[in-house]
Amino acid sequence: MGEILYNGFTMRMRKKKWALPFIEAHRDLIIDLNENTSCLDETIDILEIGCGKGDFIVGYALKHPQSTCVAVEKDPNAIAVCGKKVVEACLSNVRLYCGDGKYLPNVIQSDTITTIFLNHSDPWPKKHHARRRLTHEDFARLYRTWLKPEGTVVQKTDNAHFFDYSLVSMSHHGFELAQVWVNYQIGDDNDDVPSEYEMKFRGLNQPIYRAIYQVVKP
Amino acid sequence: MGEILYNGFTMRMRKKKWALPFIEAHRDLIIDLNENTSCLDETIDILEIGCGKGDFIVGYALKHPQSTCVAVEKDPNAIAVCGKKVVEACLSNVRLYCGDGKYLPNVIQSDTITTIFLNHSDPWPKKHHARRRLTHEDFARLYRTWLKPEGTVVQKTDNAHFFDYSLVSMSHHGFELAQVWVNYQIGDDNDDVPSEYEMKFRGLNQPIYRAIYQVVKP
Repeated sequence: MGEILYNGFTMRMRKKKWALPFIEAHRDLIIDLNENTSCLDETIDILEIGCGKGDFIVGYALKHPQSTCVAVEKDPNAIAVCGKKVVEACLSNVRLYCGDGKYLPNVIQSDTITTIFLNHSDPWPKKHHARRRLTHEDFARLYRTWLKPEGTVVQKTDNAHFFDYSLVSMSHHGFELAQVWVNYQIGDDNDDVPSEYEMKFRGLNQPIYRAIYQVVKP
Repeated sequence: MGEILYNGFTMRMRKKKWALPFIEAHRDLIIDLNENTSCLDETIDILEIGCGKGDFIVGYALKHPQSTCVAVEKDPNAIAVCGKKVVEACLSNVRLYCGDGKYLPNVIQSDTITTIFLNHSDPWPKKHHARRRLTHEDFARLYRTWLKPEGTVVQKTDNAHFFDYSLVSMSHHGFELAQVWVNYQIGDDNDDVPSEYEMKFRGLNQPIYRAIYQVVKP
């Protein structure tokens, strides 16, 4: 925990003393994700897997007050920062899960989600780690289960190889390409919100890649 | 003729006095493509649409002496430069068509081609010109007719918007993404040959995009 392997570098987030007390004090907002976490009563419209410090999910929830948004993140320090932003923005349509995404199948009902967001996910560049990539066939199968018939997965990344892999993997496993941007600019989609990673890579003048994958109707 | 609209700029190729006499003197190599051009007797393995000055097709034919390669180009000045390279390389597996690609359906037999190459094709950026883009639905349909059951279209371009369009268009019209490179480097595919446009854009440090589209088996 507290470590995010990213682009081959370990980006260790500074440990925040206030993180765990904050999480404990906001058990209505931040739910512990483990093998015993039970199924959500409410319907999730929007799911972000790997929300980091939450700039995306907070911005998105503000823009879409009618949507129930759930964000998942392993790192409790990051999720505490995200939780603070949710509280400060007085958002009542956001719920955060802290823990490993592998427990999500216990929690999410089939055919309920409209959109799944993958923002600058860990690219897991080594071939023998391919199964961990969030656009691997195994995840694509999960997403198809969770998504409504016309649901979409929206991916943004700064990693060219991961994007190459994702375009092929998703289009071979039950999704079709609805839209692609190989040089995505702010303003290309007014429905979108930049994440903190996106702004960092924009600052370095690196291209951002984006794709919308739509469930193929059977 | 003699004008190539490219990336929104008109790149006027210098008129070469020797071009038409050269073409006339090499009627076995350079075939006039018009409504009366009759069907090729020989089987085409490889077709390049828009070969420009021919660096790609000449390099490819040298690398693959067993393949019958045909290249099409509108501009007679460009095709004369390409023809000269073919003659100088003593290639007997290349045939060049000078004229508009719209006459190709008269010439090419169904289910015969292994690979169609589209190298830095005109992106036709205006929406009302979309039908002219070589990855438009109408062309995808033609390619499916010409290609063998496991045949592929291989596209390289420096134009991000054209690539975005092509990925979506081709995958919606009978092709699946076999491979994608959003930052294609020389050496990523040893079977490939750089074109003169590719080298120009590499010199400007612009990314090259590449995709291999495979016919979807019925």
